Amino acid sequence: MKSTNNDLKINTCYGKISAELLSRLSSIKLLAFDVDGSITDGGIYYDNEHVELKRFNTRDGFGIAALRKENIECAVITGRSANLTVRRMQDLHVEHIVQGEGSKDEALNRICQSLGISTDEVVCFGDDLNDMPMFRIASVCACPCDAHPFIKQYADYVTQNRAGYGAMRELCDLILISKGILNADGGYADERY
Amino acid sequence: MKSTNNDLKINTCYGKISAELLSRLSSIKLLAFDVDGSITDGGIYYDNEHVELKRFNTRDGFGIAALRKENIECAVITGRSANLTVRRMQDLHVEHIVQGEGSKDEALNRICQSLGISTDEVVCFGDDLNDMPMFRIASVCACPCDAHPFIKQYADYVTQNRAGYGAMRELCDLILISKGILNADGGYADERY
Amino acid sequence: MKSTNNDLKINTCYGKISAELLSRLSSIKLLAFDVDGSITDGGIYYDNEHVELKRFNTRDGFGIAALRKENIECAVITGRSANLTVRRMQDLHVEHIVQGEGSKDEALNRICQSLGISTDEVVCFGDDLNDMPMFRIASVCACPCDAHPFIKQYADYVTQNRAGYGAMRELCDLILISKGILNADGGYADERY
Amino acid sequence: MKSTNNDLKINTCYGKISAELLSRLSSIKLLAFDVDGSITDGGIYYDNEHVELKRFNTRDGFGIAALRKENIECAVITGRSANLTVRRMQDLHVEHIVQGEGSKDEALNRICQSLGISTDEVVCFGDDLNDMPMFRIASVCACPCDAHPFIKQYADYVTQNRAGYGAMRELCDLILISKGILNADGGYADERY
Repeated sequence: MKSTNNDLKINTCYGKISAELLSRLSSIKLLAFDVDGSITDGGIYYDNEHVELKRFNTRDGFGIAALRKENIECAVITGRSANLTVRRMQDLHVEHIVQGEGSKDEALNRICQSLGISTDEVVCFGDDLNDMPMFRIASVCACPCDAHPFIKQYADYVTQNRAGYGAMRELCDLILISKGILNADGGYADERY
Repeated sequence: MKSTNNDLKINTCYGKISAELLSRLSSIKLLAFDVDGSITDGGIYYDNEHVELKRFNTRDGFGIAALRKENIECAVITGRSANLTVRRMQDLHVEHIVQGEGSKDEALNRICQSLGISTDEVVCFGDDLNDMPMFRIASVCACPCDAHPFIKQYADYVTQNRAGYGAMRELCDLILISKGILNADGGYADERY
Repeated sequence: MKSTNNDLKINTCYGKISAELLSRLSSIKLLAFDVDGSITDGGIYYDNEHVELKRFNTRDGFGIAALRKENIECAVITGRSANLTVRRMQDLHVEHIVQGEGSKDEALNRICQSLGISTDEVVCFGDDLNDMPMFRIASVCACPCDAHPFIKQYADYVTQNRAGYGAMRELCDLILISKGILNADGGYADERY
Repeated sequence: MKSTNNDLKINTCYGKISAELLSRLSSIKLLAFDVDGSITDGGIYYDNEHVELKRFNTRDGFGIAALRKENIECAVITGRSANLTVRRMQDLHVEHIVQGEGSKDEALNRICQSLGISTDEVVCFGDDLNDMPMFRIASVCACPCDAHPFIKQYADYVTQNRAGYGAMRELCDLILISKGILNADGGYADERY
């Protein structure tokens, strides 16, 4: 669902954000996200034998782990399969890991059903055409500023930060701001730090 | 062959593209491309023993795989030899792999002959001087925006995106747009997603 | 402690720097810093088995090693634990290594006590919310220009350079300039080179 | 030796270059260069065991190999020691490899003596303070645009391209242009491609 025109904006540490977007984010119970080009910069490193490496980002990871601490569900849904993705998701306490999925909408629907969550309570985050099926059913869809141009045009929110360089953290922060867990300046409302 | 001056432009998700270029791309049957600095950012990672790594890009890979699904031939022609290139090309269903080639025009001609394809039906993609021989014979030659300056001056099309960060995908998308498989906005014409 | 308004600026190789900031830096005896996103660009590379890689920067390393040669204490305080951090810190003669620390202020206080240094003689460098506890007690707090926005707002000094690309070196240079070991142009005052 | 003011500029593929600089480059017989931050982007990758990786650039490598084909001597002089540097230099036919060198001027003088080359026939390329000793004795000194600010101020030529992303190639091309091996547009004068 695309945002309707709405001039009301809230000042945050990521600039002026639509009040209507924050309102929709405030009822989110599940964040579903892609891996390559979404929580990485799209790079896959190969060596001459069997090694495959990907680059994750600690600040993005901090955001996902912060959502998990607030009992917001997180699900990774990716077309590629790699054990390194499982390793990284375990670090961040992400319990729902769907890899090698051709139909991301089906995977998302299965997760929603198992959790008793409506797709109106889902935000999804992706960067390329194969994320469209989940974009079509989620309440809010977001993408990094360096996503594929078709996705950027379709997304409700395009991050200021690039994929693998804080894009995912920005979305996590906005979810937490919308729920009052973070202040609009990005710091914890309970000043735990 | 360089483009003749032609003011007619088509709006696409990559900005205004020459109608004449899209017309030439529409008859392309083979995409021939270089590896280092073309589908990577030019980086080669070495360790102190025998490891060599390169960084490929998933969004570029999506583009190449999309061409293959439409039965557009793809050939990698590179001056360096590395098994990691074979690994990556196999992922993407690229069947023609020529490595350690000093004369890229000869390699391209051999592939064209074996496939019964004219060089008028070839687009090539490269970033450095040793790609010039294949540039001289292909119908369309393209390079990333961070290619060597001599190549940029010679190319029919310089991508907006950098090598290893979507340059190859941009070219693949334009080929698919020219053939009506993608809409000008970069989404599939058959709305499969 | 935030800087008071003060118009006096000193020309340095990093632009105009507040004289008051340089004054506070001149009495620094300990630099405490974070790892991920502070002396790296935040990237963590995983493979499909057990490998984890991080990217450090030689120019940053030069700065830390230069402080150590002047007997300025250096302490790394990080929430994550990795042997690679120990390896890198040993290269640079950093003796105080605290990993897996949840409360960075406690770690910093412990180090200060063991060294007989007041927190008024500490500069700290970090990029994310979990660095706030040490920011709150240090005399000067600095962050890279690509730090989390909350941290950037709080910091006394935001570097021109990005994390993993000279941000730490910039801070080290400013400390050495404030102490007269480097000239304002970044070269050694004793012209050793 | 710094350039004297001289308005005469030559148009090249790297913009307008001082005729006086090109004149000095035309008599160069030896290129001496640093590794970290000069032919890499300054990154050192560590894992939790003993692995160390660096990222070289194929286009930079092409430039060095092109100088070697023209019998221009190349010497790497670096403060750090790593077998991966040897591996890379062997790829590029660089015969003079000095690692772990504290006094880069002494190393450079030794190489010049053994080759019977005057320091007036040397161009050096580096990015940090420890390159100053060789900068002080070479005829021409150049650095990447992201070098340490002190070095940038001192250098005769600052490249447009960043270290690890074509800075070294730019210098190699300018040497070859000054000698008439490349045209000012960066292509081979003998049109071998």
